[in-house]
Amino acid sequence: MEPVNLKRLAKELNLSISTVSKALRDSYEIGVETKKKVQELAQKLNYQPNPHASSLRRQKSKTIALVIPEIANNYFSLVINGIESVAQERDYHVLIYLTHEDLGREVSIIKHLQGGRVAGVLMSLSMQTVNYGHLFDLAQQNTPIVFFDRICHEMETAKIITDDFQSSFKATEHLIQRGCKDIAFIGSSKHLSNEDKRMQGFIEALQKHNIKIKKSRIVYCSENNASNHSTIKKLLMNSNRPDAIFASIEKLAITAYEVCGELKIKIPQQLKIICFSNIATAHLMNPPLTCIRQPAFEMGRQAAEILIKNLDKNRTFIPNELIVVKSELSIRSST
Amino acid sequence: MEPVNLKRLAKELNLSISTVSKALRDSYEIGVETKKKVQELAQKLNYQPNPHASSLRRQKSKTIALVIPEIANNYFSLVINGIESVAQERDYHVLIYLTHEDLGREVSIIKHLQGGRVAGVLMSLSMQTVNYGHLFDLAQQNTPIVFFDRICHEMETAKIITDDFQSSFKATEHLIQRGCKDIAFIGSSKHLSNEDKRMQGFIEALQKHNIKIKKSRIVYCSENNASNHSTIKKLLMNSNRPDAIFASIEKLAITAYEVCGELKIKIPQQLKIICFSNIATAHLMNPPLTCIRQPAFEMGRQAAEILIKNLDKNRTFIPNELIVVKSELSIRSST
Repeated sequence: MEPVNLKRLAKELNLSISTVSKALRDSYEIGVETKKKVQELAQKLNYQPNPHASSLRRQKSKTIALVIPEIANNYFSLVINGIESVAQERDYHVLIYLTHEDLGREVSIIKHLQGGRVAGVLMSLSMQTVNYGHLFDLAQQNTPIVFFDRICHEMETAKIITDDFQSSFKATEHLIQRGCKDIAFIGSSKHLSNEDKRMQGFIEALQKHNIKIKKSRIVYCSENNASNHSTIKKLLMNSNRPDAIFASIEKLAITAYEVCGELKIKIPQQLKIICFSNIATAHLMNPPLTCIRQPAFEMGRQAAEILIKNLDKNRTFIPNELIVVKSELSIRSST
Repeated sequence: MEPVNLKRLAKELNLSISTVSKALRDSYEIGVETKKKVQELAQKLNYQPNPHASSLRRQKSKTIALVIPEIANNYFSLVINGIESVAQERDYHVLIYLTHEDLGREVSIIKHLQGGRVAGVLMSLSMQTVNYGHLFDLAQQNTPIVFFDRICHEMETAKIITDDFQSSFKATEHLIQRGCKDIAFIGSSKHLSNEDKRMQGFIEALQKHNIKIKKSRIVYCSENNASNHSTIKKLLMNSNRPDAIFASIEKLAITAYEVCGELKIKIPQQLKIICFSNIATAHLMNPPLTCIRQPAFEMGRQAAEILIKNLDKNRTFIPNELIVVKSELSIRSST
């Protein structure tokens, strides 16, 4: 027999899992009619929101999980330091899980956490995460999740982001002010909440300055470093190459530097490069790299602060809240 | 009443914890007389090596812990990728714990793991770890530990290292061949197994080439970035400054680059710089940085391979074995 869970209820009512979850929690976002329908079906099917919660709760030590895509990335290293600065003070242990940008891996980790292994979760989504059933299931088992950077808009909880749109807008304007007329935007994922905002900021800045937006100048790279290298090389080998690259993540800016080295393209004279990055050696690169520095430590600190504050009060539902911490533009010789 | 554990036995017999542990496991390293003394006292005091082990064993899922000092460091990022490449294939979860180079934190994490939370541990010691009671206690509870990079020689288990001595010797000879006569070695810790080998390699290379070893040229930095900066600045501001810096870790080479920028010291003309590093942007730095690249991924892979192989066979004792994976010297413009 099919288990009675959020997914089943959603399917039977032809609603999204998110709506069902919110309806069961009596969220203000859901209409009275819908709520009634959901609650009636839940009662009829004898839906149990969290069968193991009470027995598991006792086993949970002061431990939280951090679920992130990768760590060979200065952003996440700094986030972890921010999280641990709070966790140590409040006597919590932090377990770090890596999804390696893989949805299957993310789902497997979240299922593993459903065993009540941790009291709460801090999370940044994988690039492949386009549906959220596994996350709703976890929240339903009274394990709260706080998102940061790559967030799930559909879930009601606290989310910490940086001002991706504004920073991207500002960075694009900076390139325009330096005389760039044909900027290429190189992104890593069309799905991620933060990447989407960055692309929007880029487009709106071009519009403001009456620069035509060319589809061919918005390029998405993959997870594969070798294919990224050839994508960027193809872009720059073209006789009609862009006069600047705006990379949404530092790895792509590093690849762009490498390709410029191979093709003997001079930075910044022949190509300007800017990116979102927390790389520790940006100022020592040749030439020093202009970066939008995300407030990584602070984002980690605030995410942990909110989660632990709620756990210490035995709250398993964290109110919806969007916290924006500002990034900073560090202008260097690459632009 | 004082609990009957390894520490108590060691104290009563005036032996080291390591000796007692080995004697109880009937190690060939311990003499017959000593073994007899230890085993008799253990029997007299009714010593129980692992009271919880059997009940905990059942709870342990296929989960291993990775305990490392930090992650804002490319070496550990790559190690983690190596470990996860094996863990994913064998269907194990990896929990990452950070000690932040703090012994108190390391002890607290190991105690937390004694609850039987994981089946085994992969570990690189903190800079402060000079005694190993907490690690012997964990091993005694049938949670095997495999060490890598910063290892505990005193424990009988598998240990994965790189050829720190030979690499350091080779790097020092490379500087001598480039004309350096007054090289400063900047290390981060006097206690760590790997740092010690690096310093020895440096000294032996100088001896081989009849270069006088000056105490003032062996400098140890701390955990504090600001104080490292002033230590290195003091060294380089001196009219009698060295003609090369050999940094045992990449963070110190980066600080040396920054100080050279401030003092307008030209690399490599006025000062050559070399270091142990896995930094991804070494080739893009100004000037490109000569590195001894540790086989980080491979070290992680082999450590995980050995641990999981033993866990899958339900073995909780891993035979003593020292595995050496070679580093590689990448010569670039900084030397």
